[in-house]
Amino acid sequence: MNRSKPAVRARRTVARSRLFQVEEMDLEFSNGIRTCYERLVGGNGAVLIAPMLDADTVLLIREYAAGTDRYELGLPKGKIEAGEDILSAADREIMEEVGYGSRRLTGLGALSLAPGYLAHTSHLVLAEDLYPHRVPGDEPEEIEVLPWSIRDLGRLLEREDFSEARSIAGLFMVREHLLGGKE
Amino acid sequence: MNRSKPAVRARRTVARSRLFQVEEMDLEFSNGIRTCYERLVGGNGAVLIAPMLDADTVLLIREYAAGTDRYELGLPKGKIEAGEDILSAADREIMEEVGYGSRRLTGLGALSLAPGYLAHTSHLVLAEDLYPHRVPGDEPEEIEVLPWSIRDLGRLLEREDFSEARSIAGLFMVREHLLGGKE
Repeated sequence: MNRSKPAVRARRTVARSRLFQVEEMDLEFSNGIRTCYERLVGGNGAVLIAPMLDADTVLLIREYAAGTDRYELGLPKGKIEAGEDILSAADREIMEEVGYGSRRLTGLGALSLAPGYLAHTSHLVLAEDLYPHRVPGDEPEEIEVLPWSIRDLGRLLEREDFSEARSIAGLFMVREHLLGGKE
Repeated sequence: MNRSKPAVRARRTVARSRLFQVEEMDLEFSNGIRTCYERLVGGNGAVLIAPMLDADTVLLIREYAAGTDRYELGLPKGKIEAGEDILSAADREIMEEVGYGSRRLTGLGALSLAPGYLAHTSHLVLAEDLYPHRVPGDEPEEIEVLPWSIRDLGRLLEREDFSEARSIAGLFMVREHLLGGKE
């Protein structure tokens, strides 16, 4: 089906906090129906990094997550700062969160979270050829680093503290990229 | 590492719109460091459904997504209504979005989106043994339904309109569940 995108008739900010901005959009669909949607906007996007210690082993982090109010296991990630490109942001984040830099960074595509109401995009970056290099981050407590075999994602999915869609998607995409879907 | 979760010293709503509620939390980590985090709260959670037309074929939908302002391909999904359980919500959503009910619904776990700042949870449900049954939904235009082989996720990842982390994670988890990780 090839239909044209709804026309955006108006946009306005309806709520704002330190981190979040809620925008209301008046839309007109190609069939003439008019509707009003809310969405979260703002930010330069984020990076989600798969740092490979060797051909099989990815470094996961476990840290407190305020949204779900519990410790969560997942890929290292962080916001892209103003003026920073995707690969530099990825390299900086792994220096801060796992204590390694990477000599080979490869973008594997952009992930949306809940495209219906979040404008947010996370760029997945594969980081290979690592070397020890730690840069201080702004975390309130030490981040736990957990090496995991990308051939063993089944057992990872069974862990109670591993729930993040972005990390699950990212790890399967990395496995697909590195192993061609074969386990 | 087994440390205790930060203590929540205070919580307050700092912004609110029709759909979103932003909460500020004052936290004290076990090392004594105090910090303040914002997060989005509210809602009963959502369901994300993999409706299987046969052992291989999942039904995807393609609809306009206001967050990213483009058409997005992904698994059918929707909010859990007040008083509704997870499996009933899943069955209702596929009746509305793909025109089938299911005689065999299986919960495959809960997914978080961005646990650092979203409280939101999506429950992944496998829907098998489908039968035609359409219930009117509240979509502004007809939803396009696209059958896809779960053995061919590699080609799906190459599509420009397929970016949603939740759907990517869900499809790999369903493939892992049904085929045991083998393609």
